[in-house]
Amino acid sequence: MSLDYQTEMSRLYKLAQKFNCFYLSGLGCPEYKPFFVEGYQVGLVRPDVMKQLLKYPEVFMVGPSGVELNPAFRDYEERSNQVDKVLKELRKENVFIALKGWRDENYEVKTDFLSKSLLKMDRCATCLFGIRNYGVDINGYVRHPTLGLCLWFQKRSPTKQTWPGKWDNMVGGGLSVGHGILETAHKEAMEEASIPEHLLCNLISAGCVSFFFESERGLFPNTEFVFDLELPVDFVPVNSDGEVETFELLPASQCLEKMLTADFKTTSTPVALDFLIRHGIVSPENEREYLKIIELLHVPLQSIYGKCTPNSIKENGTSLHSISK
Amino acid sequence: MSLDYQTEMSRLYKLAQKFNCFYLSGLGCPEYKPFFVEGYQVGLVRPDVMKQLLKYPEVFMVGPSGVELNPAFRDYEERSNQVDKVLKELRKENVFIALKGWRDENYEVKTDFLSKSLLKMDRCATCLFGIRNYGVDINGYVRHPTLGLCLWFQKRSPTKQTWPGKWDNMVGGGLSVGHGILETAHKEAMEEASIPEHLLCNLISAGCVSFFFESERGLFPNTEFVFDLELPVDFVPVNSDGEVETFELLPASQCLEKMLTADFKTTSTPVALDFLIRHGIVSPENEREYLKIIELLHVPLQSIYGKCTPNSIKENGTSLHSISK
Repeated sequence: MSLDYQTEMSRLYKLAQKFNCFYLSGLGCPEYKPFFVEGYQVGLVRPDVMKQLLKYPEVFMVGPSGVELNPAFRDYEERSNQVDKVLKELRKENVFIALKGWRDENYEVKTDFLSKSLLKMDRCATCLFGIRNYGVDINGYVRHPTLGLCLWFQKRSPTKQTWPGKWDNMVGGGLSVGHGILETAHKEAMEEASIPEHLLCNLISAGCVSFFFESERGLFPNTEFVFDLELPVDFVPVNSDGEVETFELLPASQCLEKMLTADFKTTSTPVALDFLIRHGIVSPENEREYLKIIELLHVPLQSIYGKCTPNSIKENGTSLHSISK
Repeated sequence: MSLDYQTEMSRLYKLAQKFNCFYLSGLGCPEYKPFFVEGYQVGLVRPDVMKQLLKYPEVFMVGPSGVELNPAFRDYEERSNQVDKVLKELRKENVFIALKGWRDENYEVKTDFLSKSLLKMDRCATCLFGIRNYGVDINGYVRHPTLGLCLWFQKRSPTKQTWPGKWDNMVGGGLSVGHGILETAHKEAMEEASIPEHLLCNLISAGCVSFFFESERGLFPNTEFVFDLELPVDFVPVNSDGEVETFELLPASQCLEKMLTADFKTTSTPVALDFLIRHGIVSPENEREYLKIIELLHVPLQSIYGKCTPNSIKENGTSLHSISK
């Protein structure tokens, strides 16, 4: 198979820039302020969000240097409940598109994947605070006797709150409170695509992708744990939770074409792109910007937060506490 | 196969820190000064190197803000020849270990992989200037019926100038002036391991790794183009250029053990580690620091140089020219 994507490939680099629009253009802009919990930076807040949080001074301390969750809250439960109450009020007031997608499914808020969670927050709200979030994706692929390497894509249900009707990876889901990585992969594989256990045992962990996207909803510093699953030629995924409209098996070249259209969920393209790179479809021979694209699939989110704490702000003479009180 | 590397895995994170010792601890230290050619930063220079370059003011302009190659040199050829002359003199004086490994094989000096080369330099000298360098590596692997996933490693010849007698990936080589990526992969596969064409046609491009290492020789901001090659169970690599002492096929778990010893070439471990991650041997289930390790296999070398130019130094009132003259 000899592919020449020379014309399309600059489009792939543009795609990598698109799913990293915040990493490349927003990060470091002074209007985005750090969000601190218990002295740790766990996110970034846009001016429109800060403006709304000013209405809840008993929960959020808003100052020119950032937003701090009231340090008087004693523990995980109290922090989670207090934030939840504010978010539910904001949701009623209908000020943020993001909150329309309320799911009653929580993400952990922490400084690092391994660190202790400081609070939980409804997943739809985490983008308002730029909280790092973690997901799991499965590349379902087939080595087709005539079409070569093919990938299964799903078309999201038109009733989904986010990216309705867009094309997406075969299986994907966020890591919610109380669920492990492999557990989430298996759960989503069964719910979204009815993949039986005897096929799921071939699931291979294959790395991760990290990128920092921004949309009108908010900020998305995302890390996806990536799995590959080779499927038999005659297997067809069937949705069982109502979240998928249809599935389609596409040869690699058509996958690239689809990923480059506005019909594909932007934040799902890094996983498919990484797959096509790892399997030699996108290579240094057909993609000039190969190195830059791979770098943009692994942006250093580990070191983006946590460089500055409310204490360091205080040392500079601008305590958040004194400002907000 | 259920592996539990919980104890060894923190060792893998330490290994990732080791091959990124300069990225994590040296970068940003004021004693390392930028090296400029034609207004572009192409490297970093240590104080001991700067001291030697002071002896050649007609070639290198050394000032407190960095080192600049004489901008009076007209073109690629003149720059290459002038630098070559200095390096050969320094080699005779025996001041740098790095120059003992003179190879008469040149690397291009450029700001970016795609940009025009500014000069060429003997490969042994590039680490003295912290020039970004590019290589090609092949993971030769076998799906063994009883041992599972196995990797071929080579033991470097005890007469090699760098890392003599150390274990290494099956095939690897630097991208020299005039040679392409795939071309280098094929050339090295034949020279180092006598892999026949009918097997090489299965070579799969599988991404790249980037890291920034420092040793007593110098600085290594390295990017390796990674290829995977599945080999038949009965194939045995045979060296034909005298640079390899022996080859050994090891099951994945033993590969990890070997990579963690001082007997393995540090700067070759990222390629093997990336392979073991992509093939599910090192996974989020058995490696706590999975995300951090993957980040350290893809450090953002694209943006490390080129932030500051002699012009910006001049604007700050410290022209390199005026300092060195």
